[in-house]
Amino acid sequence: MADWDEITGGITAARGYRAAGIAAGLKPSGLPDLALILSDVDAIAAGVFTTSHVRAACVDYCRQRLQTKHTTRAILCNAGQANAATGDQGIKDTIESANLLGKELNINPESILLASTGVIGQRIKMDALANGIPKLVAQLSETGSDAAAKAIVTTDLVTKSIALETTIHDRPVRIGGIAKGSGMIHPQMATMLAFITCDAAVSPTLWQQMLTRAADRSFNSITVDGDTSTNDSLIALANGESRTPAITEIGPESEKLEGMLTAVCQHLAKAIARDGEGATCLIEVQVTGAADETTARQIAKTIAGSSLVKAAIFGRDPNWGRIAGAAGRAGVPFEQDDLKIKIGDFLLMENGQPLPFDKGAVNAYLKQAASGIYLKEDTVLITVSVGHGNGFGKAWGCDLSYDYVKINAEYTT
Amino acid sequence: MADWDEITGGITAARGYRAAGIAAGLKPSGLPDLALILSDVDAIAAGVFTTSHVRAACVDYCRQRLQTKHTTRAILCNAGQANAATGDQGIKDTIESANLLGKELNINPESILLASTGVIGQRIKMDALANGIPKLVAQLSETGSDAAAKAIVTTDLVTKSIALETTIHDRPVRIGGIAKGSGMIHPQMATMLAFITCDAAVSPTLWQQMLTRAADRSFNSITVDGDTSTNDSLIALANGESRTPAITEIGPESEKLEGMLTAVCQHLAKAIARDGEGATCLIEVQVTGAADETTARQIAKTIAGSSLVKAAIFGRDPNWGRIAGAAGRAGVPFEQDDLKIKIGDFLLMENGQPLPFDKGAVNAYLKQAASGIYLKEDTVLITVSVGHGNGFGKAWGCDLSYDYVKINAEYTT
Repeated sequence: MADWDEITGGITAARGYRAAGIAAGLKPSGLPDLALILSDVDAIAAGVFTTSHVRAACVDYCRQRLQTKHTTRAILCNAGQANAATGDQGIKDTIESANLLGKELNINPESILLASTGVIGQRIKMDALANGIPKLVAQLSETGSDAAAKAIVTTDLVTKSIALETTIHDRPVRIGGIAKGSGMIHPQMATMLAFITCDAAVSPTLWQQMLTRAADRSFNSITVDGDTSTNDSLIALANGESRTPAITEIGPESEKLEGMLTAVCQHLAKAIARDGEGATCLIEVQVTGAADETTARQIAKTIAGSSLVKAAIFGRDPNWGRIAGAAGRAGVPFEQDDLKIKIGDFLLMENGQPLPFDKGAVNAYLKQAASGIYLKEDTVLITVSVGHGNGFGKAWGCDLSYDYVKINAEYTT
Repeated sequence: MADWDEITGGITAARGYRAAGIAAGLKPSGLPDLALILSDVDAIAAGVFTTSHVRAACVDYCRQRLQTKHTTRAILCNAGQANAATGDQGIKDTIESANLLGKELNINPESILLASTGVIGQRIKMDALANGIPKLVAQLSETGSDAAAKAIVTTDLVTKSIALETTIHDRPVRIGGIAKGSGMIHPQMATMLAFITCDAAVSPTLWQQMLTRAADRSFNSITVDGDTSTNDSLIALANGESRTPAITEIGPESEKLEGMLTAVCQHLAKAIARDGEGATCLIEVQVTGAADETTARQIAKTIAGSSLVKAAIFGRDPNWGRIAGAAGRAGVPFEQDDLKIKIGDFLLMENGQPLPFDKGAVNAYLKQAASGIYLKEDTVLITVSVGHGNGFGKAWGCDLSYDYVKINAEYTT
């Protein structure tokens, strides 16, 4: 059993946070497009950003900021324009955005982190942003999580939100999160953003380490189509408003907090994969028997990202040969005689040899799992063992459907 | 101008080679499924094989064979059963195949290399193979290239064949090749095979080095869907029957021969990409300004393999943002201010900044290039510059269409 419970409230479940989201006129559609998260007090901030060598101005800004200043009061996010490939003007717009919000909140602009999502090559509509900021601040509320979650999406089909609660030193500690993903009709908006609030007190170094590991076990373990964005950002705040003793070293408390942080990240990551373009189900791949967690995850991610595996799952086809093929090309050496493959509870390959199996039964499992009957979620489970090591890793993806091609081919620049 | 001319004759264009292909009853369809290439004399053999950790028995067999014995008389290829994931029995079947052919040809079975393509997990139908071998040998002919090319395909839409001729020391030297690719309706048959014959005399070490480099510049630079097969094999023979002096060190002759070998490999590789599942056109990506050829090719291949780029080209959409995004995540550092992107002759991005362009004109180029009007082939050209280095590399892919998903989802194991 998990050491925590799911609660309501999203990013405003943790104490000392308010949030808001409004339509400021940045998106041509008139939908909500400006979100704000505010901590009442200085919060320890950690971040994980895109590894792409083509990055948005806000990504470079946040990365530099977090290297020199570990506390943050607010996160401002605009949707509509990615502010990527916008050159020097892009950096100026990012700084100006922080200045405008700092003035309105009467806080140091350096206490603000920024994220953008939208069309690459387009500047933020600064007039609309400037007009929107006072309205946004006026909307800040302790129940504002849903409004913020709605304002960070681009073409996601659903908003993504979660909050969990545990007990540390007999006091409740909460972590909430919102995210946007890749349910994108305009794939130039293919950015993954996630914002996390926590009311524990934790040292900056430990918080960043926890977030980096949690990101590897969640957002870095999902794949929709292998295309990394210019704007991907994960920012997590911890403001200490739970009034629990500060966690400054590794121990039972840090492990509990990291476990809950990882669970929040995994919930959001799976929600993003399930909402992948054209997806009809989530695919979870579990790999055991590898040398370590990293290589296990690498194999899992290669399988989850294989176009052939994804198309087979869309066809509800128990095509273990494609799973074996993807495992083999993951760049991780293993003895093929150790390979074992299961779909759901059905063993299809063992000791590197194909086994006879009831194709109709596995096809029925795939149909039912994808429709959500088995796991209460639309998840197809693939389990692969590659040897006798202790390395265990998971990855998530989605199936590849006609709609993926349709969505991505019929978009016109 | 190239130093060579295209000639007819495929793998039997080079002197001292005969080939054959027959329907031996290995494929359920009754189509040709057994191919043989025979050199009249011992030929120097080089090979490049799949990097997958899940491999067919014949791949392991050939790799070991080439480590200890550099000459070969024959290549036997069966289509229908991949003989991968068949355990110890698979190795026995491979050895038995060589023994059967060796006996029929009255040559040492160790002088035979083998390749298989077909369904993973299925043994070769040895009875059919044994019955077929005498008929296959009886069909050997100096005009047998087309028959062999037809017998190695699985679900390719077209056969792939080429022959080139140059002059070395005033004598004609020829290289021919046949290949099968991924025009696969049953993607468990997703194997790339290519067999090359050459009548130059060349040292084993040099021939292997030439083939390895040529493979990197051709077969290893194409991507249809990123799925590497268990059976991928490239085998090249050089039998000296041109009666030209042996090439044993690097010089003008070796460079000419390697250039022609590379051209043969590139022709076959592009034919495979163009025949990718559901593809409507070939995409050629050229990258300049990188530190070296390897990193240039890595960026080119990432762009050519991006699902978002591929879907955009299917939609004939000049979506430069996706090209920039793919370049950025290729794992090769560059300054984004150095990024320059062209589609055809249209400059879309320079110094990392988007440029205004005539969308209708680029869309028209894409429609015409994909239909083959520009280059006499259905090729869309994408050119990317990432800096000021001398590294230049190319990669090829195909667009991502509804049919790719249809082909791969509707296949039933």
